Amino acid sequence: MDLKRKAGEKAAKYVEDGMIVGLGTGSTAYWAILKLGELVADGLNIKGIPTSKNTEELAQKLGIPMLKMSEVNKIDVAIDGADEATANFALIKGGGGALLREKMIASIAKQFIVVIDPSKYVERLGQFPLPVEIITFGWEITSSQISLLGCKPILRRGNQAPFVTDNGNYIVDCYFDSIVDRDGMNTALNSIPGVVENGLFVDMADVLIIGRENGDAEVLSF
Amino acid sequence: MDLKRKAGEKAAKYVEDGMIVGLGTGSTAYWAILKLGELVADGLNIKGIPTSKNTEELAQKLGIPMLKMSEVNKIDVAIDGADEATANFALIKGGGGALLREKMIASIAKQFIVVIDPSKYVERLGQFPLPVEIITFGWEITSSQISLLGCKPILRRGNQAPFVTDNGNYIVDCYFDSIVDRDGMNTALNSIPGVVENGLFVDMADVLIIGRENGDAEVLSF
Repeated sequence: MDLKRKAGEKAAKYVEDGMIVGLGTGSTAYWAILKLGELVADGLNIKGIPTSKNTEELAQKLGIPMLKMSEVNKIDVAIDGADEATANFALIKGGGGALLREKMIASIAKQFIVVIDPSKYVERLGQFPLPVEIITFGWEITSSQISLLGCKPILRRGNQAPFVTDNGNYIVDCYFDSIVDRDGMNTALNSIPGVVENGLFVDMADVLIIGRENGDAEVLSF
Repeated sequence: MDLKRKAGEKAAKYVEDGMIVGLGTGSTAYWAILKLGELVADGLNIKGIPTSKNTEELAQKLGIPMLKMSEVNKIDVAIDGADEATANFALIKGGGGALLREKMIASIAKQFIVVIDPSKYVERLGQFPLPVEIITFGWEITSSQISLLGCKPILRRGNQAPFVTDNGNYIVDCYFDSIVDRDGMNTALNSIPGVVENGLFVDMADVLIIGRENGDAEVLSF
């Protein structure tokens, strides 16, 4: 079975009747949502909160009832992928551009479950460029402030023009050699005026599920 | 002479020929800009960076040459007001809704000069509600996360509808009893997903100029 599918389907087991569920974005979270759709068809009663338009459409197609963010005051469990994850449960997310909504939902979820294939499981963060969402006004200044933290920030583009997030902001992808002090970097980035949010998820994941070649998916709990 | 005018005009003395100058917003910075307009008419050669549309219009009327944020890679001096300032040079700003641009410009200015009248000079921050700029998506959740820091956040409104910043975001005005750990609060606020920036300016001001009833304006240097 596909390793992403192994991880995603395993995560669906954490969802119980009556729960409000954060629905992540990407090719591994996809399998969790598909499985939840099956369970809902079989009578499971849950409500979903999507982290992106794509996920919203998928969940709708599968018949998973959905809530708006404004209707939510708690999330029981959130399931999402990652671009990188370490044994300490630190993550880089945001390759898909939805890092702010993903971080918002993960931050209020009682349990945050991360699903990955083994290629995303790394010893040290930073091989994957860190996405940082920034305000468009004065973005050149903000980007140059970010570079002082020891990276090369590149403005993300799509079809020539700068990529614009759901919140109307830009993203710079920041190339570090590696990120050692994750907590310090998270704080330093968020302290720069013009930075809206960054893709470092520190002390947020509760469970890490890795699809493995042989046997079942591996489950690591924090 | 008006105390705001005393403070504002004094600040203009810090501006030298050839400088790039951050131009603040509000009734005290107004007097600094007016004075700079006079000096420019007399031959002073500077370029201004406005922190708001209002200030841009004023500076234009006065014939102060202006740069766009994208053309700037340094700012020599920035002059701006504050809603509250302490003897430790900690500030609350953002009553006018332009806190992000103001903070961006102050953060890259070599010298940041704050001009106030005595009513803004306080022993402890927090009598003035702290403005926090937040993303509109999921603002209720963000606001409720902010309240966990010990305040009552109120969504700012103008003509019934929520007030929208130049960056397309909302502002919540946060009522604290007082803010003791300014550094910690600044970091805690900026770490909440959905918070773009907050009105605490810590370790940014270099000079504080207070208009005084008797004699000259008082100048405090950090």
